Amino acid sequence: MIAIDWGTSSFRAYRLDAQGGVLESRTSSQGILKVAPGQFPRVLEEQTSGWEGAPIVMSGMVGSRQGWAEAPYVTCPAGFDEIAASLHEVRWGGRSAWIVPGLSCRDAAGVPDVMRGEETQILGCGVEGTVCLPGTHSKWVEVKNGRIERFCTFMTGEVYAVLKQHSILGRMMQDGPPDAGAFADGVRRSGEPGGLLHHLFGVRTRGLMGGLGAAASASHLSGILIGHELRTFEGKSFNLLGVPELAALYQQAAAALGIETRMLDPDSAVRSLHRLGVMLRR
Amino acid sequence: MIAIDWGTSSFRAYRLDAQGGVLESRTSSQGILKVAPGQFPRVLEEQTSGWEGAPIVMSGMVGSRQGWAEAPYVTCPAGFDEIAASLHEVRWGGRSAWIVPGLSCRDAAGVPDVMRGEETQILGCGVEGTVCLPGTHSKWVEVKNGRIERFCTFMTGEVYAVLKQHSILGRMMQDGPPDAGAFADGVRRSGEPGGLLHHLFGVRTRGLMGGLGAAASASHLSGILIGHELRTFEGKSFNLLGVPELAALYQQAAAALGIETRMLDPDSAVRSLHRLGVMLRR
Repeated sequence: MIAIDWGTSSFRAYRLDAQGGVLESRTSSQGILKVAPGQFPRVLEEQTSGWEGAPIVMSGMVGSRQGWAEAPYVTCPAGFDEIAASLHEVRWGGRSAWIVPGLSCRDAAGVPDVMRGEETQILGCGVEGTVCLPGTHSKWVEVKNGRIERFCTFMTGEVYAVLKQHSILGRMMQDGPPDAGAFADGVRRSGEPGGLLHHLFGVRTRGLMGGLGAAASASHLSGILIGHELRTFEGKSFNLLGVPELAALYQQAAAALGIETRMLDPDSAVRSLHRLGVMLRR
Repeated sequence: MIAIDWGTSSFRAYRLDAQGGVLESRTSSQGILKVAPGQFPRVLEEQTSGWEGAPIVMSGMVGSRQGWAEAPYVTCPAGFDEIAASLHEVRWGGRSAWIVPGLSCRDAAGVPDVMRGEETQILGCGVEGTVCLPGTHSKWVEVKNGRIERFCTFMTGEVYAVLKQHSILGRMMQDGPPDAGAFADGVRRSGEPGGLLHHLFGVRTRGLMGGLGAAASASHLSGILIGHELRTFEGKSFNLLGVPELAALYQQAAAALGIETRMLDPDSAVRSLHRLGVMLRR
């Protein structure tokens, strides 16, 4: 079968053997934002040429309103059974492929939350307990008996990016290597009185008067934001699933708060897609 | 004398009588960002032509590093006496003017904070207790015995602006009249579990799935941010000093949290500048 991870900015395809082992893989920058409406079948055929005949299972933003076709969210709790029952088929020119739906839940106050793509990564890990996926929109996910019970999203990565690029804080920042001391100061700062909106202004005043250098400012801001995210977690340990550089920052911040972390394999999506492919054939 | 409020984006000049009454006033868009280095004397002469011979006292960002000349911050606690003792004189072509210094303090954790211009507005009100000046960088100020004891800045207004203009939240917003219900929902939301970075993502999901309209989204975001700012205040009442539309939002949010507010006259800077001018002559 063919497993595809088709996100906002990238496309990854894997040709798998019967046991789910990767025989071949291909990567391209043809994320859904680069694909014009109606062109999804053409891009898929180009990227998987020579692999014809195998069933195709795809996850990620390809199933969003901006993607190939909207695969409606499945309500939590949800595991492989619920997701397999809601795979969304797309057909073109006598061929077809299956899109993995995203998940939705409601937080303690009843406000909806959504994910699309992360469910495939998480279930592929086969882990239980809390899983954090840091990123533009960080996800904190509770897994119990192989099903995603609930999850909670934080805009940490996007807030960091827009403040760095578009706010007065960014004007005094210079690119440079990450500064571990300034990051740790930011994590500590996130626990002080005044709240996030006050702590953000402190990045500016410490730059003006507090000896915080232009290259260290970005790391300090990152520490403040990740610290605020982590302090909402009340447990003693969690699992981390993400690109190594960012996961390492979360691990460092968690350690400073006395929280244990365990790194998971970030390439777990293929295992889920293979299992869903096997379930399809039954 | 002549009182001048010279900020980032605007210039206001007032010709005063001996008792501080306004005889004439002039306003222009020649804020400091529009004035090239070395051109401050020329702009001042143009804007005050016909008023020659009177002493000039100026407050605001004209005294910043990007302004005419940097008037170093005075450390809190500070009132009229401390500020008058640190007025910064600038001279050109046989004339001179005085720049009011900004104030600095340190928060409970020792992180520096600064203001420039707000001190002149606040002291002109002659009020005691807590004063909130909502805006791009909101200030919360403690006044005791006519002196500013300490203050605390929140990046509320700027975070709102950059999220609306540059984040995924802004993509689904449409301009429209303020929505009081969506704003009140945001203020309530700010007290729910998960913290600000989670509440921000909820603006998106409520837009996608929760029935929040494109015009109401901006008001909801505003309510979340102002709510987070207000919840750091532990008292029962405070004074509000700012433009009427924004001050009214803070008043509405405070009322929802059971906090009393009193509106102050936003044109109080002239009274301070007059008093500083009188002190100069002694």
